[in-house]
Order: sequence, then structure tokens, then C-alpha cells
Amino acid sequence: GLLKEVLFFPTALACVEHLFTPDPRITIPCPCPLPHGLETSFSRLLRHLLSARASLDLCVFAFSSQELSRAVLLLQARGVTVRVVTDKDYMLITGSQIGTLRNAGICVRHEMGAVHMHHKFAVVDGRRLITGSLNWTVTAIQSNKENILVTEEPDLVLPFTKEFQQLWDSNDPA
Amino acid sequence: GLLKEVLFFPTALACVEHLFTPDPRITIPCPCPLPHGLETSFSRLLRHLLSARASLDLCVFAFSSQELSRAVLLLQARGVTVRVVTDKDYMLITGSQIGTLRNAGICVRHEMGAVHMHHKFAVVDGRRLITGSLNWTVTAIQSNKENILVTEEPDLVLPFTKEFQQLWDSNDPA
Ligand SMILES: [Zn+2]
Ligand SMILES: [Zn+2]
Repeated sequence: GLLKEVLFFPTALACVEHLFTPDPRITIPCPCPLPHGLETSFSRLLRHLLSARASLDLCVFAFSSQELSRAVLLLQARGVTVRVVTDKDYMLITGSQIGTLRNAGICVRHEMGAVHMHHKFAVVDGRRLITGSLNWTVTAIQSNKENILVTEEPDLVLPFTKEFQQLWDSNDPA
Repeated sequence: GLLKEVLFFPTALACVEHLFTPDPRITIPCPCPLPHGLETSFSRLLRHLLSARASLDLCVFAFSSQELSRAVLLLQARGVTVRVVTDKDYMLITGSQIGTLRNAGICVRHEMGAVHMHHKFAVVDGRRLITGSLNWTVTAIQSNKENILVTEEPDLVLPFTKEFQQLWDSNDPA
């Protein structure tokens, strides 16, 4: 059947370095002190994001996780079309990764109308929805009780792709 | 097929008084100034909650909406078993409905371990999942960009029912 997966946080801590290695045949042992070889909620989230081949549409209130930023930058470097919609207030906070993304050439738009753009969802290649309570922050990932739901069920994905496009179009600064 | 529905907020404003009327044959015209007869994201959310016949398991970070509180109290009055898990810090904030729920005899537990209990989900009758970015506050409902996903897909519902039971058991104050 269609992909349906639920991830809960806080995640177990484990090294995710191997997920960023472009060539899986390279197996230099990682010297970091974290456990290795564990699949965790966070490694699952990274895998879903890094599965993008054509596009990543990201709509997230708070984005300060350096590891998630690294994943988005890697996708951009691979030629994946990345679009980001975020909150106008949170993007200015210390530790926000939004400036880093913009400096790398990623198109970021911020909500200009609503009080807060409080979504936390991503759509990978127009067909895989990642959504839930989890902001893209270290506290959310490592400390909070949070959920993420991942699905390719079209009845659930399509409303989010439409919502993203509407937010994208209505917050065009031009 | 199984229920799958996505709701986006902010909601259009409309009267929801009729949803609280126990007897739908009673049709006293409502004198309030809001539009009547509109189906909105918020009226859909209320309908899903008020469909509970046996149980409502609610796990929500912030709960200050009086209308959602009214819905939960109505379910309790109808004999529905209501259990609430919430955040230890937010529950103390002015406007929180948690005290009102407790005064009505509803069992409320607060997360004692994690930094924040940031979930925003409900499970109706053990089979209908309501989850997303939306906290149960007036700002979230009326002002923010938010989403709620409603589904009866067992692969998605069951992980949340297990998560709820685990939070319930692990935060037993006894
Ligand atoms: Zn390592
Ligand atoms: Zn009315």
C-alpha cells in the first residue's frame, strides 16, 4: 500500500553522519561519540527529506536545527528545487537557519498576512507529505513530545500541495 | 474508503451554536451577529469531536478556546470518557481551560518528563485521529495559518492511540 508512517519525538540520539555521505560505499568509521547504526525518529525524518529527487516544498514556523539545514542545503546542491515558506517573526530569531538558506540561494518567502504561519509540513517530490507538531528546532527534536506523520496518500497530500502553492503565491514579495 | 480529511486555518467565522444543540429538530433562530449555515474548518473540527460516543483522548499543548472547552464538557456530560494530557507549563497560563475541565470532573494529566508536551492530537472513539499544527487557542483557530488532518486509517491512528496510552500511564500522579 501507500506509505504511511508515524514518528514520535523526542528522538533517540544517534549519529546521522552516514545519511549525508553521498556515496554509501564510503565507510570511513565516524569518530563522533554518538551511537552508530541506530535507526531513530530523526534518522527516519532525514531519510524522507533526503529522498527528494526533484523538489522540496517546506512550510515551517521555526527552523533552527543545523542538521535539518544541512539536509536542505545538500538537496539544493544536488539540484533539487527547494522552496521555503516561514514565519515572519520567527525567521529573525537568533539561531534561525533561514538566513543560511537564503545565502545558499534557496528561495524563502515569509507569511505576510496571518498572525503566525504555524504550519510544520514538507512535501517531497510533490507526493510525500511530512507533517505534524514538530518545529525544525533542536529542542523539538531532542526534548519535546512531538509527532510527525508521513504519507503518500493522495487525499492527504494534495490539500497540502495546494496550501503550499497558495502560501507561495500570496506571499510573493515582488 | 476510510475517512481522510484535511482542514486549514484560520477558519472562516461562522456561528457554531447549532452544533451544541442536543436536539437538531429545535430550530430557534440564533440572534448572534455571525454568519449562519456555513460549514467552516472550525465547524468541521467541532463535528469530528462531537461525534464521540464512547471516548475522547486529547493530547494538546495549549488549550484556551472556550468553544472547544464547551465541546469537551458537553461530551463529558453525555457520558463520553474524556482523558486529557497537556503541557505542565502552558496549563498554568491565564485563559487555560484545563482548570475548567478538571472542575467538571475530567481527568487531566500533565507531562512530567519532557521539556514540552507539544502534541496537538485527539482520538475519537479509539478510531478517528485528529492531528496537526493547531493548538486549541482562539489565535490558532482565527488568526494563524494552521492545519488539521483527520483520518480513520488504522496505520496512522494506532501509533497515536499507543502514544496516548503511554503518555497517560507514564504521567500518572499516583
Ligand atoms: Zn558519528
Ligand atoms: Zn449564531
